[in-house]
Amino acid sequence: MSLEKQKLIMLPGPTNVSERVMKAMTRPIINHRGPEFGKLFLGLREKAKSLFQTGGEVVLFSSSGTGGVEAAVWNIIRKGDTAIVPVFGEFSERLAETVELAGGRAVRVKADYGTTPTLAQLGRAIEGPREFKALFLVHNETSTGTAVQYVEEACRLAKAHDAFVVVDAISSLGGYSIPVDGWGVDLCATASQKCIAAPPGMALVSVSERLLKYLKKSPPATRYFDIARYSDYGSRGETPFTPALPIFYALDEALDELLEEGLANRVKRHEVNSAALYAGLGKLGLKFFAATEVRSRTVVAVRYPAGVDDATFRKKLSEEFGILVAGGFGPFKGKMFRVGCMGLVSGESVDATIGAVEKTLKSIHGVAR
Amino acid sequence: MSLEKQKLIMLPGPTNVSERVMKAMTRPIINHRGPEFGKLFLGLREKAKSLFQTGGEVVLFSSSGTGGVEAAVWNIIRKGDTAIVPVFGEFSERLAETVELAGGRAVRVKADYGTTPTLAQLGRAIEGPREFKALFLVHNETSTGTAVQYVEEACRLAKAHDAFVVVDAISSLGGYSIPVDGWGVDLCATASQKCIAAPPGMALVSVSERLLKYLKKSPPATRYFDIARYSDYGSRGETPFTPALPIFYALDEALDELLEEGLANRVKRHEVNSAALYAGLGKLGLKFFAATEVRSRTVVAVRYPAGVDDATFRKKLSEEFGILVAGGFGPFKGKMFRVGCMGLVSGESVDATIGAVEKTLKSIHGVAR
Repeated sequence: MSLEKQKLIMLPGPTNVSERVMKAMTRPIINHRGPEFGKLFLGLREKAKSLFQTGGEVVLFSSSGTGGVEAAVWNIIRKGDTAIVPVFGEFSERLAETVELAGGRAVRVKADYGTTPTLAQLGRAIEGPREFKALFLVHNETSTGTAVQYVEEACRLAKAHDAFVVVDAISSLGGYSIPVDGWGVDLCATASQKCIAAPPGMALVSVSERLLKYLKKSPPATRYFDIARYSDYGSRGETPFTPALPIFYALDEALDELLEEGLANRVKRHEVNSAALYAGLGKLGLKFFAATEVRSRTVVAVRYPAGVDDATFRKKLSEEFGILVAGGFGPFKGKMFRVGCMGLVSGESVDATIGAVEKTLKSIHGVAR
Repeated sequence: MSLEKQKLIMLPGPTNVSERVMKAMTRPIINHRGPEFGKLFLGLREKAKSLFQTGGEVVLFSSSGTGGVEAAVWNIIRKGDTAIVPVFGEFSERLAETVELAGGRAVRVKADYGTTPTLAQLGRAIEGPREFKALFLVHNETSTGTAVQYVEEACRLAKAHDAFVVVDAISSLGGYSIPVDGWGVDLCATASQKCIAAPPGMALVSVSERLLKYLKKSPPATRYFDIARYSDYGSRGETPFTPALPIFYALDEALDELLEEGLANRVKRHEVNSAALYAGLGKLGLKFFAATEVRSRTVVAVRYPAGVDDATFRKKLSEEFGILVAGGFGPFKGKMFRVGCMGLVSGESVDATIGAVEKTLKSIHGVAR
């Protein structure tokens, strides 16, 4: 295999990873039951707490982001529990299905893909069922490039009913500021390969004191994703099961990078660069999938102009310009391409992407628009 | 952190990893939905099939080995199902508990730790319950250094009752030959950081055609570990969820190394080197935890002579000789140390370990015995 040339990755995860973070993966293998690992673990956990803006617990699963979200569901939902799940894309639908797989009842608050449910809609659902255990809110729908604009208000509504609030911020935390203590998020999940800009392989999950208390009394059916168990082991600098050590090293280094930049600066950079992406691609006459007011800052979903073949477009972009973007997801395969604006994305990479998209469309269409 | 000096790792996993495999982790990040990943995936899967000696399916989870075992349970066990589980150490007890967490009934066939249940005992259990869905057999008990000597016969007994046979070979596959097709193992699980000698982060699971057929008709409650879903995606060169790409690269390279050595040679090397470990440590007057006839080839569990403190011993071994061994597990913490004989372990590393153990004991005790 000759995969040796690094491309410019403008995917909705994984993202480009710095040389420094890549290099961290080759640090020596150590005993995950020894003192060196303990030091690494405890340091990493503190850095992760800064990212989540929490004084509470953060646990680390060796899994993809989906694993972190499955953990959220299986830890909270018991047979017969009701959960409210806004559904406005593939990932939020998956979340509702996961609630059902765990034996729960999912009350879906639906919106057309490309929009999000309104806060009023969500409010009506919350006032609706007599009792519900949790609100499972996908913050950023990677499949449609839409982001919920009212996470804080949603938390407040759910908390008034004493429900747990879970925020799937897999593709957004670090590109957005989500102060989990400040907003009252009981569980927030993200993954290493998104705005943190580490390689894939690790899910990070914040857990409120209130939720942890519940979990210690009511153990879940899953062992691999048992949050209270991770918390217990974490207090002595360990994970219950063998961690994906190289990803651990990389995550530690990537969080150093993030904190050196500063969380606020990283968030601002995502805001500025995604605005530049929307502006630049818009100037080419391209239409976006998301309604303007709910556009995501980390995933830009672009409708293909008539006559542009997905495979041809993305192949040209990759082979002639060395730029990777993603295709559409599920029912939108072939209808859109998705540009990630995550992690290390810079003004230069935004400009390069816009330029390459323009030239590629021209070469396919003869004109750019 | 200065962790930069590589030690000689004689742990029951993770193991030493070659320069070549470490380097593979730094290959460029690629799109796991693109053709390059597909090529990598399909190649890796073929190599993994050689390791399991199967023409059937192998799926890859981004998780630890425990994740692979949890996957086995949740994919097979439905509420009320009975499973037979030989229990003779911490990992087999965990397996029985996982069956119960999934809503199943675990019929434990128990043996004192340090031995394994006999084949006759297992046979009686199999003839006992009117109906059982599966036999969950830990091949190699990492916690006690014992290995079941009758995997093939156990498969035959269980198959006669039409039960699924699951073999947890996390810490043994590659150090032992387990021909899953030949023996009729329906599911066999191992992990990247044991005899394969890759870094931790990936579980490998073989699945028989018969089991896959059942799974396609009867989806499990877990999504992250849904084997049929992995099989579906695998057929088009993908994983359902974002894979831990660097570990994937490393595993691919480590399987290359393994197949270049030859599976039979690697198995033989484990046999020869563990025999040398038992002989050399025995000559120092040390006693082993496992009964001689069920000694493990990959984990050597050694009783501490009276008056040797676990922490002191292992710290000296690590700091003065650069050799890492593990402590006891669960109830055996402080009572034994465990020497891994996995992956790249050579005659030289065996000799170095025996020599260092001798000198360390001398320095603690004044005498070696």
